[in-house]
Amino acid sequence: MRLIVKSGGPQAYEEWRSLFAEVSPGIDVLDWFDPPADLRGIEYALVWAPEAGRLAELPDLKLIVSSGAGVDHILADPQLPGHLPIARMMLDVTAVEMSEYVLMSALMLVRDMKRMIVNQANRHWEDFFPPLRSTATRVGIMGLGSLGAAAADLLRRTGFMVSGWSRRRADLPGVRCHAGEAEFDAFLAETDILVCLLPATEATRGILNARTFARLPRGACLVNAARGSHMVQADLLAALDSGQLRQAVLDVFEPEPLDADSPLWTHPGVIVTPHIASTPSRRDRAVRAAELIDLHRRGEPLPNLYDRATGY
Amino acid sequence: MRLIVKSGGPQAYEEWRSLFAEVSPGIDVLDWFDPPADLRGIEYALVWAPEAGRLAELPDLKLIVSSGAGVDHILADPQLPGHLPIARMMLDVTAVEMSEYVLMSALMLVRDMKRMIVNQANRHWEDFFPPLRSTATRVGIMGLGSLGAAAADLLRRTGFMVSGWSRRRADLPGVRCHAGEAEFDAFLAETDILVCLLPATEATRGILNARTFARLPRGACLVNAARGSHMVQADLLAALDSGQLRQAVLDVFEPEPLDADSPLWTHPGVIVTPHIASTPSRRDRAVRAAELIDLHRRGEPLPNLYDRATGY
Repeated sequence: MRLIVKSGGPQAYEEWRSLFAEVSPGIDVLDWFDPPADLRGIEYALVWAPEAGRLAELPDLKLIVSSGAGVDHILADPQLPGHLPIARMMLDVTAVEMSEYVLMSALMLVRDMKRMIVNQANRHWEDFFPPLRSTATRVGIMGLGSLGAAAADLLRRTGFMVSGWSRRRADLPGVRCHAGEAEFDAFLAETDILVCLLPATEATRGILNARTFARLPRGACLVNAARGSHMVQADLLAALDSGQLRQAVLDVFEPEPLDADSPLWTHPGVIVTPHIASTPSRRDRAVRAAELIDLHRRGEPLPNLYDRATGY
Repeated sequence: MRLIVKSGGPQAYEEWRSLFAEVSPGIDVLDWFDPPADLRGIEYALVWAPEAGRLAELPDLKLIVSSGAGVDHILADPQLPGHLPIARMMLDVTAVEMSEYVLMSALMLVRDMKRMIVNQANRHWEDFFPPLRSTATRVGIMGLGSLGAAAADLLRRTGFMVSGWSRRRADLPGVRCHAGEAEFDAFLAETDILVCLLPATEATRGILNARTFARLPRGACLVNAARGSHMVQADLLAALDSGQLRQAVLDVFEPEPLDADSPLWTHPGVIVTPHIASTPSRRDRAVRAAELIDLHRRGEPLPNLYDRATGY
């Protein structure tokens, strides 16, 4: 069977080809950047941010596999064939890494690691007490899917007080779970570190905005490890500059890479990481894609399919 | 009863006095920096780095309470009255904070946060995979007292592989425990991140040296949250520059504050923090010191006493 791959740029193709040759030799791997003249018989596509219209050109396409946990980079294509199933790349390692990124961020915010980073750059030794203590810090997680639930559990076990907010009410041990718009403000009011792990949908676009920040306790912190489209950058900068927010750890931006002249790079309250909260290896992803293709060929149900009703 | 206090400098005295007035009003708190003419009747001293000879001038001193977990800053006094008991300030919060500092450091090393810190300063977006994965990273903890044991447990529960090394063999669930000089090299050979939480004694002085670093796997990392005297700075810099060590997170130095012209501030492989791994509040320490004084007055055994035989 034929699979076309676009993930990691043209230079990644040879690696994908050799990985699939190893894990599933029956798959004929084609290069998105150098496609064959005859596109017939390409039933599968493994993609990250496919150029608009390209998927629609594949007459026999049956399944789209996202190379990441989200599907927003695929839905951005206005000519996307709406009838095709889209499988999200949800790996065990994704939940582990995402949780650890959130935990690392929370620990850095509790200790004010950013202040120490700035001090080190200035060769300045400063005695100070940490602004927070983990056991008295309320972490509020937006989005309680598999990633949010895993992060909530790890932070709770480390000693933080954890609450969560999601569209539908979740039920997680030891986590105070809020649901829906009606409970959003109450959730924010008791959150010292706000963590965004929401899917990127029309409903969540721009949810990290001035209104949201204003409902947090003064001096709260933000961790965004979801998508840059969740955040209104001007509102974040204003909240940091007014002191309403103390600090932010940001892994995602719009667009990426972050512009070299973005004020986020140099803001004293911001830690920038380059979309590395979860970076499953190409090997992990090839194994998972081969499993999904195998399930699909056997007619079995696929896990983590994109749901048009919820938008993720 | 009379207690003399030296911890936090002259400006901290008023805070100590009001804290003790609250938690144990019977204690008459005297200022080390402005002592009374008559030193008789001073039975207790709460100190950090007391000037040599000053404790020996107190004719009625019965108990020395260290303001920190270690006692090296007291033993440095050559005129220290050798017959007096010294109580170490071991608080629950010390073990919690120290463990979280080690965990934060390990997570930062796994992700190569230092590289991202340097990149942010240069407004440089760089795609890269993390150098380590927590579940495949072996953290080796030197020193398995109450702090080392707590750190080992937290790291193990987070997903790291944890081993330990101590003078006498420890028995910790899920932790491979090595003991004594005979097993030191075997411990080092299987350690990706070496964490020093040893007490500062004559036997451990300079233990983080070229020989030790050479026995780690190439590219290993170091976290020192114990004392600056454990580390031979020239050997650390040489190991970093040769690539034998990849990175180091350092909280302690000799002397402190770290000199403004120290090469550690600017080394691309080093994260400097200003002795903040554990910073119990003065309130926490006043409460604990009052408890220790009360136990001593009632003739009950004191926990965490300095032991001349082991040196800590």
